[in-house]
Amino acid sequence: MAGVDVGGTKILGGAVDEAGVVLRRVRVDTPAGEATAEDVREAIAAVVRDLAAGHPIERVGVGTAGFVNAARSMVMFAPHLPWRREPLKDELEKLLDLPVVIENDANAAIWAEARFGAAKGAADIIGVTLGTGLGGAVILGGHLVRGANGMAAEFGHVCAVPNGDLCHCGLRGCLELYTSGSALTRWGRQLVDKEGGGGLLHEMAEGDPVRVTGPMVTKAARAGDDRARGLFRDLGGWLGLGLANLAASLDPDFVVVGGGLVEVADLFMDRARESFEENLTAGDYREMPTICPAALGQDAGFLGAADLAVSGG
Amino acid sequence: MAGVDVGGTKILGGAVDEAGVVLRRVRVDTPAGEATAEDVREAIAAVVRDLAAGHPIERVGVGTAGFVNAARSMVMFAPHLPWRREPLKDELEKLLDLPVVIENDANAAIWAEARFGAAKGAADIIGVTLGTGLGGAVILGGHLVRGANGMAAEFGHVCAVPNGDLCHCGLRGCLELYTSGSALTRWGRQLVDKEGGGGLLHEMAEGDPVRVTGPMVTKAARAGDDRARGLFRDLGGWLGLGLANLAASLDPDFVVVGGGLVEVADLFMDRARESFEENLTAGDYREMPTICPAALGQDAGFLGAADLAVSGG
Repeated sequence: MAGVDVGGTKILGGAVDEAGVVLRRVRVDTPAGEATAEDVREAIAAVVRDLAAGHPIERVGVGTAGFVNAARSMVMFAPHLPWRREPLKDELEKLLDLPVVIENDANAAIWAEARFGAAKGAADIIGVTLGTGLGGAVILGGHLVRGANGMAAEFGHVCAVPNGDLCHCGLRGCLELYTSGSALTRWGRQLVDKEGGGGLLHEMAEGDPVRVTGPMVTKAARAGDDRARGLFRDLGGWLGLGLANLAASLDPDFVVVGGGLVEVADLFMDRARESFEENLTAGDYREMPTICPAALGQDAGFLGAADLAVSGG
Repeated sequence: MAGVDVGGTKILGGAVDEAGVVLRRVRVDTPAGEATAEDVREAIAAVVRDLAAGHPIERVGVGTAGFVNAARSMVMFAPHLPWRREPLKDELEKLLDLPVVIENDANAAIWAEARFGAAKGAADIIGVTLGTGLGGAVILGGHLVRGANGMAAEFGHVCAVPNGDLCHCGLRGCLELYTSGSALTRWGRQLVDKEGGGGLLHEMAEGDPVRVTGPMVTKAARAGDDRARGLFRDLGGWLGLGLANLAASLDPDFVVVGGGLVEVADLFMDRARESFEENLTAGDYREMPTICPAALGQDAGFLGAADLAVSGG
């Protein structure tokens, strides 16, 4: 079977077996600039054809950022892709002559961790993926919770701060404004903007807030800069609070943290665990869940999408 | 079968049939003052014996405020009852010589609404009960979500306001501080404390904040006092926000609002629905869930406990 993970900048595909072993990987850039919905579909189809050249493919799972409907057929809205109410399943099935299912990318990645990765064996799992934004997944009793509209686990748009900063989704104070790569960039810019000078980040950005990027904040933190390290601790604090709120509602036995930021998990996971325990009600009367970074790296998205195309979640 | 709803002030029991019809009701005051854990157990047993005098009882469900463990045998902690790690199932089974299961009271009440009341027929339900505090329940695919420790759906202790008011649970800014009878009382006191005079609530409390009670706020609102009505609208606003956060995570098709405050639902439900739609992400891309007040009144707790003792949820 094959899985494809469609992001705003790259499309990653994999031919995989039932045990989650990756037989072949293909990576292309996501069509950008003036690219149309059709261009992106064609790029996905080309990735699958490439995978199929080496391995027999009977079924394709596609994980994509954005809101996917409950029938797993349509992308309702994807912030970084040219899709609005896109009937992606039908269009790809026409192009490929294979059965296709569409999944939210965070659902796919966390499902992979539950089946083959860090959360293997756990029954009740909350997962978040930290990248540019914050995605989520809920697995209860070994099954993915999709919700009435297929839109469950949009943890990134739970309100963390009433009347807080404005989110691109139109709401204010959304959790992903405080727990994502974008949060690091925004805070880094605020730091550089405020300081008269000093601080490694200020130096790296040559005093210009607009030059600050997420990777620059990471680099400064890695070099030991206290202010940059503080931003990661802040992120960990918000992550722990957000996860504690979810745990008060769902009482999971396992929490897994995935997405690109996991590569720098050492900069925020300790603080996240500490903040989780500080912010979870009735801590004295419960077993705390295990809180782990994801284990499958960039393969998680296509692995989970491929498995979900067969197992259904 | 029989169900018992154990609250801080009263114990309500009912003999019920499989269709949720109440055959007999018994009500006693909860032992108070210097009452021991044993006193409360004895009072529950007396209620069940009274019910059993008129109807054959094979099984008993007990719904109680507080944290109930995953095995449904023990009350870990109950704020308004003299129970700490109380082995209530075993103790009651000894007293009654009948099988007993213990449930969280909000789980029991919302389960009754799902089986026999306002949410009958819905599959994915979020429920809250608004009384002195805020209780909750999650029903997905027709099954009650209990969580790894039996502590799921503690929505009252999700953080609504980072570094907000101090909650009796030890955390700050918990949702129930802004969405419960206690919230109305606290805000009413603040109103009376702040004003130099005027306003019906100020008059009713004779200018003394400590005299303000929840029912007094209701009475002032019913009499048309704008300030008191505003407090209910504030409560509705917070309720809508809290429910929107839960809906972003769980995407239910039905939301039911129960508990004692439902008797004055007309004072806050419109504002709650409005706030829900304002605060739920991607509203344009989803069907909004139905948001309804509960239908079963004070029977809900024992009805749900009785049914859960048989069905298991």
